[in-house]
Amino acid sequence: MKVDADDFFFSGLNKPGNTNNKVGSNVTTVNVNQIGGLNTLGISLVRIDYAPYGQNPPHTHPRATEILTVIEGTLHVGFVTSNPENRLIFKVLNAGDVFVFPVGLIHFQFNPGHENAVAIAALSSQNPGVITIANAVFGSNPKIDGGILAKAFQVDKKVIDDLQSQFWMDNNN
Amino acid sequence: MKVDADDFFFSGLNKPGNTNNKVGSNVTTVNVNQIGGLNTLGISLVRIDYAPYGQNPPHTHPRATEILTVIEGTLHVGFVTSNPENRLIFKVLNAGDVFVFPVGLIHFQFNPGHENAVAIAALSSQNPGVITIANAVFGSNPKIDGGILAKAFQVDKKVIDDLQSQFWMDNNN
Amino acid sequence: MKVDADDFFFSGLNKPGNTNNKVGSNVTTVNVNQIGGLNTLGISLVRIDYAPYGQNPPHTHPRATEILTVIEGTLHVGFVTSNPENRLIFKVLNAGDVFVFPVGLIHFQFNPGHENAVAIAALSSQNPGVITIANAVFGSNPKIDGGILAKAFQVDKKVIDDLQSQFWMDNNN
Amino acid sequence: MKVDADDFFFSGLNKPGNTNNKVGSNVTTVNVNQIGGLNTLGISLVRIDYAPYGQNPPHTHPRATEILTVIEGTLHVGFVTSNPENRLIFKVLNAGDVFVFPVGLIHFQFNPGHENAVAIAALSSQNPGVITIANAVFGSNPKIDGGILAKAFQVDKKVIDDLQSQFWMDNNN
Amino acid sequence: MKVDADDFFFSGLNKPGNTNNKVGSNVTTVNVNQIGGLNTLGISLVRIDYAPYGQNPPHTHPRATEILTVIEGTLHVGFVTSNPENRLIFKVLNAGDVFVFPVGLIHFQFNPGHENAVAIAALSSQNPGVITIANAVFGSNPKIDGGILAKAFQVDKKVIDDLQSQFWMDNNN
Amino acid sequence: MKVDADDFFFSGLNKPGNTNNKVGSNVTTVNVNQIGGLNTLGISLVRIDYAPYGQNPPHTHPRATEILTVIEGTLHVGFVTSNPENRLIFKVLNAGDVFVFPVGLIHFQFNPGHENAVAIAALSSQNPGVITIANAVFGSNPKIDGGILAKAFQVDKKVIDDLQSQFWMDNNN
Repeated sequence: MKVDADDFFFSGLNKPGNTNNKVGSNVTTVNVNQIGGLNTLGISLVRIDYAPYGQNPPHTHPRATEILTVIEGTLHVGFVTSNPENRLIFKVLNAGDVFVFPVGLIHFQFNPGHENAVAIAALSSQNPGVITIANAVFGSNPKIDGGILAKAFQVDKKVIDDLQSQFWMDNNN
Repeated sequence: MKVDADDFFFSGLNKPGNTNNKVGSNVTTVNVNQIGGLNTLGISLVRIDYAPYGQNPPHTHPRATEILTVIEGTLHVGFVTSNPENRLIFKVLNAGDVFVFPVGLIHFQFNPGHENAVAIAALSSQNPGVITIANAVFGSNPKIDGGILAKAFQVDKKVIDDLQSQFWMDNNN
Repeated sequence: MKVDADDFFFSGLNKPGNTNNKVGSNVTTVNVNQIGGLNTLGISLVRIDYAPYGQNPPHTHPRATEILTVIEGTLHVGFVTSNPENRLIFKVLNAGDVFVFPVGLIHFQFNPGHENAVAIAALSSQNPGVITIANAVFGSNPKIDGGILAKAFQVDKKVIDDLQSQFWMDNNN
Repeated sequence: MKVDADDFFFSGLNKPGNTNNKVGSNVTTVNVNQIGGLNTLGISLVRIDYAPYGQNPPHTHPRATEILTVIEGTLHVGFVTSNPENRLIFKVLNAGDVFVFPVGLIHFQFNPGHENAVAIAALSSQNPGVITIANAVFGSNPKIDGGILAKAFQVDKKVIDDLQSQFWMDNNN
Repeated sequence: MKVDADDFFFSGLNKPGNTNNKVGSNVTTVNVNQIGGLNTLGISLVRIDYAPYGQNPPHTHPRATEILTVIEGTLHVGFVTSNPENRLIFKVLNAGDVFVFPVGLIHFQFNPGHENAVAIAALSSQNPGVITIANAVFGSNPKIDGGILAKAFQVDKKVIDDLQSQFWMDNNN
Repeated sequence: MKVDADDFFFSGLNKPGNTNNKVGSNVTTVNVNQIGGLNTLGISLVRIDYAPYGQNPPHTHPRATEILTVIEGTLHVGFVTSNPENRLIFKVLNAGDVFVFPVGLIHFQFNPGHENAVAIAALSSQNPGVITIANAVFGSNPKIDGGILAKAFQVDKKVIDDLQSQFWMDNNN
């Protein structure tokens, strides 16, 4: 089957995603699901929109490192190193700043300003995967046993019940 | 420098780890830090001890898949798939059962019985890394901004303050 | 040696590169030479500026696939498949369009408009390398034997002499 | 096709393998053939049972490094480095000891005691392969030319004939 | 489906290729297209014949490093390093000499003698690909816009027109 | 440190190796130890000389697939698949024939003719390693326990004693 230019093409990364949700952000993904020609090539792209005070909440990519650049606005970004240090490496980024989130580490971006922010980020996999920590831990289907989570997070089970009763939306398209 | 047998050797995986901690479990690791000869060879081993009702709390390995077998006792185990499904894949395991936790996914083991449990697990990296979700999110040093986490987990900031004020211990040796 | 946030950070990708050169373009690179924390992580970023009618001339990346998105302006882009087909896969891109250039293939971008154009591109290596075809073939140091090139390109050696007597500038910073 | 927990599960690694054979050992394998979910994940597990004075005879894994831990009993283990050194790296292991056999090297385990021994080992491939040296060299189907082997092992062809006339059983399930 | 010896076999690499063409050389390839058993094994072989004063013109392999040895005759060989150096690394080779062309770099071989030359080369991919620079740049189908190439090579568009009007033959079988 | 052409060069692969030894063959290796520029590039080359009735005895490469072509003479070649099949895949090769030995499998070449034979082979690693089965099993230093080998090969220990008392020479340079 002959490939053509459309197998290497995607359109619309200039369009702001809808940030009208609980976390105030939206991720538009361009990976092998959108561009078939990326198969085996080990890279993909996303656009992230942030409403004022919006965030891309703590998450990991199980199969990719991310390199992000701010197109407009300001972002407070960080990642946490693995055990036993759990060190928070963080920075405030403005337009033109670039930051790296190493493979598999928990990271986040937050828009501290009262204007929208936009970032473009690349990932070192054609299918990097996204695990939003809150959604995976408290919003899985079926639920993780509440008693297990109460002990894991050292809180009353009632707190876990509240967390698990929420509607967990995914800000990735 | 000439290698010898001790460069490929470690002793003590038959000794129970100390589970007298908040999560009631202990992980003894045998990776490239314990066995220098594992360098570049892409594999390592752990022993995990679980007190009754103890757990190896939700965590990820940023650079490895894990395959675990129960040596004694019973374990309730699970992992959560990535967005948008966040499906919990779980199973109750007894001695001789084997389960796989794919690279980068959040997973846990819980000992539902009133006896100790023991597992041996292998990881597909000489240096897999461990990220205990609670420790990385709520116990990082310095702390992640509480307002960011309150929005990420959709809870009152007071809940986050409580979580962040805890002492987060790492059950990995 | 302890890493900190600056090991994962670069600043200035919002600044237009100087396109006042023969090809009318400029590439600002952000790879492991600018961000040490990218080491072993397999990804990097560039910003490309194009003057009106400027181009990023035919080149290859010996160790990376590229995924590019247009930030402003219009770009005529293409790559050529390998022997025996040598098929040109091309497309006109506008802001928000994304295109993939597979590893090692000769590709180019041209700004057909009378306004500046800007693109951000990611590469699947922390050190992708760039080989500008004209520079490598006609501007190497020392020169490739003119007789060899005359036969390779099936032209009079005088044409090769002219090509080799030029000053070949590199549009990558 | 939707995966479920059984795609990541295997049962029975607590059951001793039948060591009633010429080498007095038995390998129970848990790789991608037993657990489909291991596909592309690069790891697998085995249980090895040893009768008193039984052995897992000299063999290689063409695609994996092995890390082994003794569950019960005593094992004399070793591997031989490649040409020109052919150095034997060996050790006596007891319960809780761990040893590494690097990818592709010839290695063996021998139970010197009068009790059974049991080991669990992990391999850095979902399909590591096993080549038992005696079986491959003297028990192939069809046979390798006896004259070639007589010269390779510098013995009388009659010795090779005897070796090739044996029934070579595979101790891997 | 059972493999047999023919899945790992190819015949005819002793036969000179037909060098009666514009560049005076011929490449006989033995990769996964000729030997199905090479699939996933990451290696292939070629034989290259050179008429007197013939050449294997400047080309790259997008997915492989090449190691070449001269079987008969003399070869002038070289490769050019990437930007910004574009350094020509070259050598005159005689029978028994070996030379390496690193992955993705532009390289060539030229027979400066009045006798035939023959080389055997190996490539680090079962499907390395070949991009003959002249063919890809000036002989693509469809053509790259002549104005773009005129600026890229800093020559009059008439020169490009001449180059593009040629018949570009591929010396690879 | 600046590389130059000699970092990619080796001389002498046209010189016959000395086959005046017990197996009647000689392997001249050109890997990263001879050509520093091969580092990380994943490929190497050998020349193999065979006296009449000489052989390259059963051996494996722990880290590489091999592709071989006969330059002169005739070779009987084969490899044995892994457990449980242990199938011998074999072929008689003449000049110009090509054969593949997959990574880690035991293989050999034998010269059945009364003339010398010569082969060139490539390996998919810059440092493939060679394990001559007889040398590693019976000629290791120190020796593998004779009782272990007697049981592994199901022969009288006296046969093993004889085998171990030989001088095992390595035909690789």
